[in-house]
Amino acid sequence: MEPGEVNAETPPAQIRAMASAGGFCGTTTGLAPGYVQCNLVVVPEKYASDFAEFCHRNPKPCPLLARSPAPGDTSLPELGVNIDVRTDCPRYRRWESGQLVDEPLDIGDAWGDDFVAFALGCSFSFEEALIADGLEIRNITEGVNVPMYRTDQQCQSAGPFSGQLVVSMRPMTPKNAIRAIQICTRFPSVHGAPVHFGDPSQIGIPDLSTPDFGDPVSVAPGEVPVFWACGVTPQVALEQAKLPLAFTHSPGHMLVTDKTNAGLAIL
Amino acid sequence: MEPGEVNAETPPAQIRAMASAGGFCGTTTGLAPGYVQCNLVVVPEKYASDFAEFCHRNPKPCPLLARSPAPGDTSLPELGVNIDVRTDCPRYRRWESGQLVDEPLDIGDAWGDDFVAFALGCSFSFEEALIADGLEIRNITEGVNVPMYRTDQQCQSAGPFSGQLVVSMRPMTPKNAIRAIQICTRFPSVHGAPVHFGDPSQIGIPDLSTPDFGDPVSVAPGEVPVFWACGVTPQVALEQAKLPLAFTHSPGHMLVTDKTNAGLAIL
Repeated sequence: MEPGEVNAETPPAQIRAMASAGGFCGTTTGLAPGYVQCNLVVVPEKYASDFAEFCHRNPKPCPLLARSPAPGDTSLPELGVNIDVRTDCPRYRRWESGQLVDEPLDIGDAWGDDFVAFALGCSFSFEEALIADGLEIRNITEGVNVPMYRTDQQCQSAGPFSGQLVVSMRPMTPKNAIRAIQICTRFPSVHGAPVHFGDPSQIGIPDLSTPDFGDPVSVAPGEVPVFWACGVTPQVALEQAKLPLAFTHSPGHMLVTDKTNAGLAIL
Repeated sequence: MEPGEVNAETPPAQIRAMASAGGFCGTTTGLAPGYVQCNLVVVPEKYASDFAEFCHRNPKPCPLLARSPAPGDTSLPELGVNIDVRTDCPRYRRWESGQLVDEPLDIGDAWGDDFVAFALGCSFSFEEALIADGLEIRNITEGVNVPMYRTDQQCQSAGPFSGQLVVSMRPMTPKNAIRAIQICTRFPSVHGAPVHFGDPSQIGIPDLSTPDFGDPVSVAPGEVPVFWACGVTPQVALEQAKLPLAFTHSPGHMLVTDKTNAGLAIL
């Protein structure tokens, strides 16, 4: 291991430190196996209560793991030691009036004393649990981003936050899908059990080969597409909310925490 | 309630007593809600060890709840007070060399000091749990026996016992099927989670409209067939085993026990 190089052996705190120092700005896929990685959403305090309620009303796409202890507080002590939400993701997204305007490496310059950060569970955690059970995750096998789709299912709105449920899709045999439902049920804080399987048109997806986000994957004969609520949903809600200013992590560039995936299991 | 009439209020012990006295010989569907009903298999001691092993190797179709404390013992103390396996099912089936030859109301005259009874979990228990969650069970709605099918999946054999897995089928929307998988996972001793959903041909079923046992049910647009391992499987294994003599309950005429369905939940 080169000094300063991030690999699968790098501990979470070191990944965060290197992201913070500008020495790492890549995706966190496959890093820190066993540890929870989070979606991050940062909004001004004025909108924090509504966003928290949006998460509460839509727990499958927006499973809230932790929020800032107080407005302006840059730590997330529930998730790790010395976390700084301004710098510890490898890359961020800046949103103005619902438009993506920049993907900076940190948000320190833009940070405000009224900012509140929300950390939401991420599919990496349940993918790890599925792989540990011997199931194949097609997007990992094919080395691409998981395909994600806007559905026709409306989220429960809260204040300015609303929008369609976004789902991720992983093809499986029915037998493996049943096993995946069992495994993911143990992990409600990282999207939990799938929300649908089979016919995509039943949830308003016209064509599996043209995902709205990520990349298409192959579906083999005898497999069915299995759909999970997806952490891109809050980004769609941010687009709808058109806040003057908000930040998220950049997709795949997650906040790596000190919390273990195993510790998220409810049973 | 007429004296001597069995209805949904009749306690398990009274149902058994009336079946034993010849005052009740009907099906037990819908009786003693909340209590476990069992499939019964009775074989000579010579075959008991192999049959127990067959159950052990095929726990989904043959979830063993209790067996006779000793050969010739007619009680099942784990499942209820004063159970007499010779008389307490409303109706039995007599098998000779793998052929169904009679459906007597009791098997007292044929009982042998070397007979061993096995009580296996039954789908009534998980159907109750699904209904309690608000799910519709089509065969109940349509007032028919659940459709059951021989599959092309071979059970693990043990001694003379072998044969194809038999499955029961209940159509559901994908959303309800996911919920049913979660609920049934809590009840491994009554067939547990489904073994398959969707395309019947994947498990060797050519036509849903012609079940091998029971009655066809309608499948609505947007629903998928969901398949559970079925307690008819051991009857198929008995056909294969061609024992000189064996007994089972008659389908639907179950042994009603004092054990609660809720008590079977593993979580």
